[in-house]
Amino acid sequence: MWKPDRQSKQPLYEQIADHLERRISYGEFPPGSLLPSERKLAEQLGVNRSTVILAFAELRSMGIVESRTGSGTRVSMTKWGATPKHTPNWSRYAEGGSFLPNVPFMRKIREALAQNPGLVDFASGELSADLAPIEEITALMSRHRYTSYLGYDNPQGYSPLRQALVAYLQQYRGIQATESSILITSGSQQSLYLVTQCLLSPGDAVAIEDPSYCYSLPMFQSAGLRLFRLPVDRHGARPEDIRSLYKKHRIKMVFMNPNFQNPTGTVLDMERRRQLLDVASELGLPIVEDDPFSLTAYDGAPPSPLKAMDAVGSVLYIGSLSKIAASGLRIGWMVAPHSIVERLADARQQMDFGLSVIPQQVAAQFLKSPDFQPHLDRLRMQLQFKRDLVIEALRKELPGLVRFTIPQGGLHLWCKLEPEVHDGKLLEGAIRRGVVFVPGSVYGSDSGFVRFTFARAPADRIGEGIAKFAEALRELTGESSVRNSTE
Amino acid sequence: MWKPDRQSKQPLYEQIADHLERRISYGEFPPGSLLPSERKLAEQLGVNRSTVILAFAELRSMGIVESRTGSGTRVSMTKWGATPKHTPNWSRYAEGGSFLPNVPFMRKIREALAQNPGLVDFASGELSADLAPIEEITALMSRHRYTSYLGYDNPQGYSPLRQALVAYLQQYRGIQATESSILITSGSQQSLYLVTQCLLSPGDAVAIEDPSYCYSLPMFQSAGLRLFRLPVDRHGARPEDIRSLYKKHRIKMVFMNPNFQNPTGTVLDMERRRQLLDVASELGLPIVEDDPFSLTAYDGAPPSPLKAMDAVGSVLYIGSLSKIAASGLRIGWMVAPHSIVERLADARQQMDFGLSVIPQQVAAQFLKSPDFQPHLDRLRMQLQFKRDLVIEALRKELPGLVRFTIPQGGLHLWCKLEPEVHDGKLLEGAIRRGVVFVPGSVYGSDSGFVRFTFARAPADRIGEGIAKFAEALRELTGESSVRNSTE
Repeated sequence: MWKPDRQSKQPLYEQIADHLERRISYGEFPPGSLLPSERKLAEQLGVNRSTVILAFAELRSMGIVESRTGSGTRVSMTKWGATPKHTPNWSRYAEGGSFLPNVPFMRKIREALAQNPGLVDFASGELSADLAPIEEITALMSRHRYTSYLGYDNPQGYSPLRQALVAYLQQYRGIQATESSILITSGSQQSLYLVTQCLLSPGDAVAIEDPSYCYSLPMFQSAGLRLFRLPVDRHGARPEDIRSLYKKHRIKMVFMNPNFQNPTGTVLDMERRRQLLDVASELGLPIVEDDPFSLTAYDGAPPSPLKAMDAVGSVLYIGSLSKIAASGLRIGWMVAPHSIVERLADARQQMDFGLSVIPQQVAAQFLKSPDFQPHLDRLRMQLQFKRDLVIEALRKELPGLVRFTIPQGGLHLWCKLEPEVHDGKLLEGAIRRGVVFVPGSVYGSDSGFVRFTFARAPADRIGEGIAKFAEALRELTGESSVRNSTE
Repeated sequence: MWKPDRQSKQPLYEQIADHLERRISYGEFPPGSLLPSERKLAEQLGVNRSTVILAFAELRSMGIVESRTGSGTRVSMTKWGATPKHTPNWSRYAEGGSFLPNVPFMRKIREALAQNPGLVDFASGELSADLAPIEEITALMSRHRYTSYLGYDNPQGYSPLRQALVAYLQQYRGIQATESSILITSGSQQSLYLVTQCLLSPGDAVAIEDPSYCYSLPMFQSAGLRLFRLPVDRHGARPEDIRSLYKKHRIKMVFMNPNFQNPTGTVLDMERRRQLLDVASELGLPIVEDDPFSLTAYDGAPPSPLKAMDAVGSVLYIGSLSKIAASGLRIGWMVAPHSIVERLADARQQMDFGLSVIPQQVAAQFLKSPDFQPHLDRLRMQLQFKRDLVIEALRKELPGLVRFTIPQGGLHLWCKLEPEVHDGKLLEGAIRRGVVFVPGSVYGSDSGFVRFTFARAPADRIGEGIAKFAEALRELTGESSVRNSTE
């Protein structure tokens, strides 16, 4: 991102005016389009708002932009768009399209993180750099000679990676698979996208857990699916609920995350697993099992996936390296019947022509390397340590005001807030104080829940982050003044 | 892909039966599903059909499969699906979904190449390994220390790559862009997919060139777009056709590949470019410019992109490294107004959570490296050499029977066949003889056209490939016997 040069002799406002003029003349902001607000630009560029006001005045004097009170600053039509020429109405195009934009809270969180990288990040569902096997992967990359061919890949994915996964799935997940029953994807997100786009049609009913990560994904709505809720209690979803949803709505698929569920951290009870598979086979109903977290089990004994018990073949299994190694590799996989793998591979070719060979090679080598198991051991110990830091901080900062079940694996802590507060206001207050989390409503739950991801933030900032969150919460509940006055 | 072990003491048919039993028991072929045909399996495994027949008989005797004359071999329901349990009707799921499967010819070609890697490949639109900068990229990867962070990337793509592209676009394409007006994609395919999914709605009318690569992409139909044709003559598409399509059908977007058009190799005439941009700005109509081939210009003077002349901001520009470096990197880009970049980046996050950081780092370093320009120089000389080999072979093997305009850049030769032949039969005959090409009808043209990609096949097999193609053509036109008898 461009920033003004504070060493330069040219005044800041002039530098900013020049920069904006350049962006306008290159077409980034077409005639008639709205420029970012003064406040937003000031934040982005790290200058006072008054400097941006001066820059806008400069551009106005040159006839490049026009400001009208209350409606912001727009690129002038007359200067750049000599009538009768006009640019396409880009903003209308951007609002069109069948694919829905991200949920507003998620956009807000992403924007906040982009504008202020110093925020304590309890929102991003990923590992911090020190938890990822960066050293191991860097060493692999400098040690191995890479492919002699960098062409389009097999539509199902790089064959040696699929072979490595056959061994991995057997050893670590108790799943029997063959190379031809595996599809490499760029992660669980792409796996779910392919399933919703290719195996389901608009109007189809599907069941998803409540709360669930899936609610944060507009892809379900974009595909025109009707979503029905499977409430998750301490033992996971209830099999009988699936039967009744099937009777009522003819659901065509069930989406589940049985191990260390996102966001609740729940592990589906063993007896329920058996019943669930029975119900599925009785109804001929496919279960899509998302299993990204199992190998983070803090006690080193990951719960089995549903797929390992699936004698009938009801389960489409989804896994990934994002939560157990590095999300930036963008490597995930599906295990599915051959007809499904072929269908999804064909569609993916249409969408993006498949994945880069390079990260697939890296992933294959990492899975087979002697570093893999020690990395997992280190990861689960560090995650447990960070989980404990969050819990300790919450107990210190908000005694009696939050409730949670202590998760035994995964990256998240799911909290019920005792005081009744407004989701959006709490998020805003937290961002203002320098901390970000995901409001529970993003996962379809009622207001008053919060997901804290403890994997992403550095260990030495977790306490500070929770303290800031507590301040934001207390401000909303009016407790802040009380506490301050008694201190 | 598994193959039977010819050194083993276990008979081949038993090995194959064991292998199939394993795949069936793992769920790759659920109860009731159809196994691949005897012929297809024999091809895949490199054995005689009789060996597969024996393997199937073995499985039948174990009650694992059932064969019925004329309807192939299916996995037995009784053995694996103890009633009343049943697996989901996976084949019906595979046939569902709103996303359309690939066009049959393209699937046939892909299958043929997968089954017989020894085919002379005039179909795959990519560079052969010796044309790609494998050495350079391998050297870069072992020299540079990679990122200290492998987390989720910025939704618009890796910032240093966008910076490198700002310089690249200015130096090589005469395009002024800013980092924030660039979206990194996995290639032109993903760029087009995002545009069709996010900026257009079902029922919208769009114009595409005729013939055009776009016809080979079911994504246009999957998005529910109405396609209208812009005929391409020796000088490219005609601007007045756009105006009349707009009047008749209110087209909302125009898709073009002005430089070394795929498949025709045409370069859009300069006067037409001016008129085209005038028409676009008069109508406020966006033009999506796909520009993958320009830097292959054999004379070293690549034609300018439309975007470089686009003073009004009508053009969405799409580029990629696939045709000028390596398709396996999966790196492409778009230059667009800010609102469009934001919209597409947001949607892409939903679909696949963005690209792997690793190939983006490699691409950024390669674009900035002193190896880049020498690579391009070498590439265009080698492409020209291969183009000449194809032309020479066609003139030798099919004198007077094919017509073409000699392309001055790109990877393809577009041929009109003089004899009238059936597209599908010609492709089948060619595959049988060991060569594969893309029938013109895939690009929306009438029967009797062929696209030969000369970049992919090794130079020393081009003559042989064309000779085989000529045989297949002569067989269909009945000339084969004539010629043979006179030899």
